Order: sequence, then C-alpha cells, then structure tokens
Amino acid sequence: MKIVVLKFGGTSVGSIDRIKKVSKIIISYVKKNYKVIVTSSAMSGATNELIKKSKEISNNFISEEYDVLVSAGEQISCSLISGRLNHLGYKSRSWLGWQIPIFTKGDHSSSRIQNINKKNILKYLKSGGISVVAGFQGINFNNRITTIGRGGTDASAIMLARFFKAEKCIIYTDVDGVYTTDPNTIKKAKKIRVISYEEMLEMASLGAKVMQPHSIQDARLNRIDIDVRSSFKKGEGTLITKRKNISSNKIIRGVSFTKNDAKITLIGVKDRPGVAASIFEPLYKNSINVDMVVQNISSNGKETDLTFTIKSEDLSKTEKLVKKNKKIKLRRIIVDSRVSKVSIIGVGMITTPGVTYRMFNALAKKNINIIVISTSEIKISVLINRKDLKKAVSVLHKEFNLEN
Amino acid sequence: MKIVVLKFGGTSVGSIDRIKKVSKIIISYVKKNYKVIVTSSAMSGATNELIKKSKEISNNFISEEYDVLVSAGEQISCSLISGRLNHLGYKSRSWLGWQIPIFTKGDHSSSRIQNINKKNILKYLKSGGISVVAGFQGINFNNRITTIGRGGTDASAIMLARFFKAEKCIIYTDVDGVYTTDPNTIKKAKKIRVISYEEMLEMASLGAKVMQPHSIQDARLNRIDIDVRSSFKKGEGTLITKRKNISSNKIIRGVSFTKNDAKITLIGVKDRPGVAASIFEPLYKNSINVDMVVQNISSNGKETDLTFTIKSEDLSKTEKLVKKNKKIKLRRIIVDSRVSKVSIIGVGMITTPGVTYRMFNALAKKNINIIVISTSEIKISVLINRKDLKKAVSVLHKEFNLEN
Repeated sequence: MKIVVLKFGGTSVGSIDRIKKVSKIIISYVKKNYKVIVTSSAMSGATNELIKKSKEISNNFISEEYDVLVSAGEQISCSLISGRLNHLGYKSRSWLGWQIPIFTKGDHSSSRIQNINKKNILKYLKSGGISVVAGFQGINFNNRITTIGRGGTDASAIMLARFFKAEKCIIYTDVDGVYTTDPNTIKKAKKIRVISYEEMLEMASLGAKVMQPHSIQDARLNRIDIDVRSSFKKGEGTLITKRKNISSNKIIRGVSFTKNDAKITLIGVKDRPGVAASIFEPLYKNSINVDMVVQNISSNGKETDLTFTIKSEDLSKTEKLVKKNKKIKLRRIIVDSRVSKVSIIGVGMITTPGVTYRMFNALAKKNINIIVISTSEIKISVLINRKDLKKAVSVLHKEFNLEN
Repeated sequence: MKIVVLKFGGTSVGSIDRIKKVSKIIISYVKKNYKVIVTSSAMSGATNELIKKSKEISNNFISEEYDVLVSAGEQISCSLISGRLNHLGYKSRSWLGWQIPIFTKGDHSSSRIQNINKKNILKYLKSGGISVVAGFQGINFNNRITTIGRGGTDASAIMLARFFKAEKCIIYTDVDGVYTTDPNTIKKAKKIRVISYEEMLEMASLGAKVMQPHSIQDARLNRIDIDVRSSFKKGEGTLITKRKNISSNKIIRGVSFTKNDAKITLIGVKDRPGVAASIFEPLYKNSINVDMVVQNISSNGKETDLTFTIKSEDLSKTEKLVKKNKKIKLRRIIVDSRVSKVSIIGVGMITTPGVTYRMFNALAKKNINIIVISTSEIKISVLINRKDLKKAVSVLHKEFNLEN
C-alpha cells in the first residue's frame, strides 16, 4: 500500500475557501493512487481565540482542560475538510486522537506521541477512504485528551508517516520552501531543492516559518523524508532528507542571519572556576537566552574578558542582572545593541578545507569587521555591526555560489 | 449519594462573564453537599457559527462529520466551565460523550440516548469532583460522535438524572419559569410554581422557550421532576412534575395562544371515504403543519364543509396545493389569514364540569366570536379573529383566576 501523509498548517485551512482548495490538493494524490492520510492544524486564529478564552477564565488555566479546549480547533478543521471531500464525491472521515487512538506520554499541553494504533486507519485506507486525522492531539493512559507541545501538527505528521511507513510526508504550509537566505532581504535568494536535517536544524532562523525544529529532529531520528510545499501555489518545494541522499556540489547550503542581537562584554572578570556559571545563572532563571559566548584567555591568569550575545530586547534586563550579581567581580561592562549574527551553513564544510578562510576573506574585502566568531560542525557564525548586515549576507551568498 | 443534575443552556454560558456566574451557581450546590453533575450547551452563537461553516462547505454536509463539527461547541463550553471551577479551588473535570461513554441509537444528528455508563462518573463524584458533561453528544456503536436531535442538552440532562437517579434535575435557562400566559402580552401573567408534564406539553407555545417538548416527554416517561430556573436572576422557577404531586386548586393552569394562524374552509366537498386523507396528503408531503381540523356533517350525505388551520406563512402555498389537487372535488375555498388560536390548559378540567361553558360564556360576554373549537383531555382551543386576541386572553386569564 502506497501511503502519503499530507499535513496542512493553520493558514492552509484558514478559511472555507482555503479548505476547498486544500481538498483539491488532497484529491490529486488519490488520483495518483496514493492511500491518503491527511493531518491538519486548526483554522488559523482559532487556537488563539480559544487560548484567549482560557486566559479570561483563569490566569492559570488547568492544563487538562486546556487540552480539551484547544483540541476542539483541530476537530473543527478536520470535520470540515472531510465534509468537503465527501461533498466532492470522495469517501473520507475525520479521526480524532481517541478514535485511533494516538497515545501520548508526558504532561498535558506538552505531550509527545508514543504510539499510534494502526488497525482502524489501515482498514479504512484499504476500503478506499481518505483519513483526516486531527493534528496536535492524542490521549494519555487516563483516557484524557492531550496536546502535543513540541511541533504540534508537524509532529503528528511525522509520527503518522513513521507508524504507517508512508512513502512520502508532505508538509503543506504558507511558504513554498526553504531559501538560501531571506528572499525579502536578498533578492537573489534561491529556493533550496534538497537539504539535510542537520542543515535545516542549523538554519532555524530561516526555517522556523517552515517547520518546528523539534519536528525536524523527530524526522531525522526516524529517517523520514519531508517535502515542504506551499498550499497556496503550485510547484516543488524543499525536500528535507538524509545527508547521503544529497548529491549537490554546494559546500554551503545557505546564509542565515539574525537582526536584533546585542553584545555584552565583561572586562576584567576575576578568573576562578565557576565564574561563567555564576554569570549565566541569573540570566537562565530569568529566561534570557544567551547565544554566542566567547571568553578570552587571561594574560595574567587572574582576570579575563567575557563576551556574550543576547536578543536586543533583553539587553537592559541583562545589564541590570549582571550589575547586581554579587557572585562576580569585574572592572567594566561594555554593551553594544547594534550587532547582528551572520551564519553560513552546509554539511559540505566538513569535507572541504578553507571555508572559514573564504568566509573571513570575503567579509574583509568588504571592510566588514568581525566582532565574535563561533563555529559548529556544519555552521560558522560571526557577529558584525548591524549596519554591515545586508552587505555581509550579500557577499557570502555570492561567495558560496548560492545565486545560481 | 445525593446527586443533582444542573443543565445550562447556550445563553447561560454565552460569554466568559456568564461562565463565571454559572460556576458560582454550581458551587452553591456543592456547598449544600450535593454531588454535582453539570451538563451544558455550547456558548450561544457557537453552534450557529459551526453550522454556517458546514453550509459553506456543502449544501448537503455529511451528517457523520456534522456531528464531529458541532459537538466541538459543547467541548469548548464544558472545558471552560471546568477550568473556572478549578480556578476557584474546586475539583472538576469535563467529560465528553466518548469518555463516559454515553451511547446513542438512531441516525447521526438525530440520535437518542440509549445508555449511560455510570462507572467513571460515579467514581469521580465519590472522589469529590464536579463532573461537567458535554451536552447534546454521545457516541454510537461505531465509536463515532453523534448528536442528539430531539431536545439536545435538555435530553442529556434528563437522561443523566434518570441513569444517576438524581434527586433533582434543574434546567437553568434565560427565562425564570413558565407563566400563566405570555407576560409580554398580558401584564398580569403570573409565574406558575408547579405544573404537570401534560399541561407543560400542551402549553408548548408558552413553554417552548423553556424546554423542548421531546425532553418534557422524556422526563414524563422517566418520572423525573424538572426544576426550571433562571441563571440570570435568583429566585424559584417552575417545577414540572407528576400530576399527583400537584395540590393546587386551580382548574386552569394557563392560557396559551398563537398569533399567526390562517384558516381555510373548503365548501361543498364531495363526501366519500378517504376524502380528508386526500386533502391533507399533499400538505404533509410539503411539510405544512395542519393544526385544527373541523368537518361539518353533510346535510344531504353527499357534500361536506371542511375547515382547517395552518400557519399564516404557509397559506398561499397551501391554497395552491388544494386547488391543484385532482383527487378532491369542491365548490369553493374560503381563506382567512387573520385568525388566532387561544387555548386554556389544565388537568383540573378533567374533574371539573362546566369549564367549556365558562370559557365560551366569558368570550361571548366580550362579543368575541368563536370560529372553530377543538378540545383534548386537558385543553380547549378556540379560533377567533386576530383583532380580538388580546381581549380574549385577558378575559380568560381573569375568568380562571390566574391573576393571583
């Protein structure tokens, strides 16, 4: 049995008109002789409306009932999709989490899918029906409705693809794929046809609109190819797959960047074991996310300079927390709220020497100063002045042949 | 275990503010040491919005998915009520049809409750929790969501009261009880404290806002007392109960009326067996509801005059259907679209002679002409000119001591 899993996000089913369009997409797979499992999010805005109601009822709405409440959104969208498919003459039915069942583990509102009972849906697919599975929901061992915290309906799609050994898992969304960089900033950005899970994960800033990182990770662990497409316009999207499936000659897959970073440098910190932990503990407790961290070697062995970056919006709070932190001794704080991070990402850099040099050289030629550097296996990030951002992205995009 | 079933209609939970108020009512029963089963409709307007969506998807939306769709409304309201009760420090949870389960029989969208599994809810009540049961929904033997066609959440409440042997079944609604006649028409209308099922059924025109006739019938068959109250203002409502529980000395319980009737008289119909059936068959097939029917004895045994009433809005359609009906032969049709029906209702008339006389005499004194008369065991209805309606209701209301 040739099974395809089709996932539709909230904007893809955001209106009655959209649901009608999506139904046509679904039918196109039936015509290609696929057995089709659809999973859909709630109509865009519906979940937020329900969450708003819960907040008006209580500033601490009980999570068991929160899951009952918000899961109604997918119940509505999936019954409408199925209703439309029936209207068009195709056998179809909705499946709620409890009807399959999809079993989850973990806390309410942040559950993860543990098991999917295949029997009922397989029987229905074999009978020629299109199964429309409510995304984002399952039940726990107490027979209560749960919702999936990480990745939501993306996670539902990947788990359905995994348990039903689907030939394809297609994520229909409101963007038509992943680009080499932000097409709104760099006009020459190109759609990436194939990308590895690892690259996709590192390109979070570009890919966040496409898919939740947790779901990409789930797909990676379960070796499931994901085809990201637009439900708004035709044409191929981006395939997220295993490295070995990719035969592209590109060293670098894309250039990502963040716009609103801020840098804090602590000058003359007393260098003793645990000092870094002492600095970051209050930030962690205040949910301030620290991104890049660089510590220079202290010349005299007694003092050190430490630089880290955070989101601009967290700057003043972070500065206050550092200043009132009695566990650390330092001479001076320098802050800079006008910095940005630019990263090049590509599995090709593992096997290709000189990528770092080429990156730094390209930036140097444009007189772009590098403030901080950090690297991972498949990613090199540099912190630069924000005024140089567009120029930097542009030169790197060209340097690594992403324009064609 | 002292169990109370509390039912809230759509307007009673029509906003977040209303849900907060309703939660206080629920808690008042917990404080009186009741084990509380709540059942609620969807927030007012919610069901209509969902139905509107289904119509936009298809003019013939499949009933299986219709039930999945509209049942989301009660899922939302019940999770919010339960969330509020938890917020106020009371243990509570929502129960959807499938979680109990509530088993139904019959077609989708018009199912009836067949059985309620008591185990889970009894255990929860014993543990001190308030059970908030989604009204209007159940599941069928196929494990699919069904909705209850007749009476909706009223039916849910009565069946819950029956299966759990509740001490009380209280229907909270937006009116504060049943009145002796329409208070908007007759200022001296009084709230009825106790009424029998039979009287309540006959007073459909007054009571329709209070409760669905099918649910009153269900209550009657299961001998369940129903207490109708307002969720908007305090104070006693109307108790609907068995005749023998009523010790009131009133012969007549109320005066009901309809505003928009029309009368059709067929003059000189050939009198032969089956002629009445021939007249009404096409009306039945066109969903036209015939109310009063009077056939005069034919003087010569060959012809007869037949009068019947229908809703004014059906008049022109009915006239056309009669005229093109080839199975009947008649001399003339007289129509009158300016008539109204006034009824007096009361179990007291069974044992009290002269009620008919008193009614006709009271109308005669006011020069009100009676066009058609029809009677049942506990109800006498007359058709009069619409211009006399208010006068007629007023004089009958006074004649049978309903003003005090």
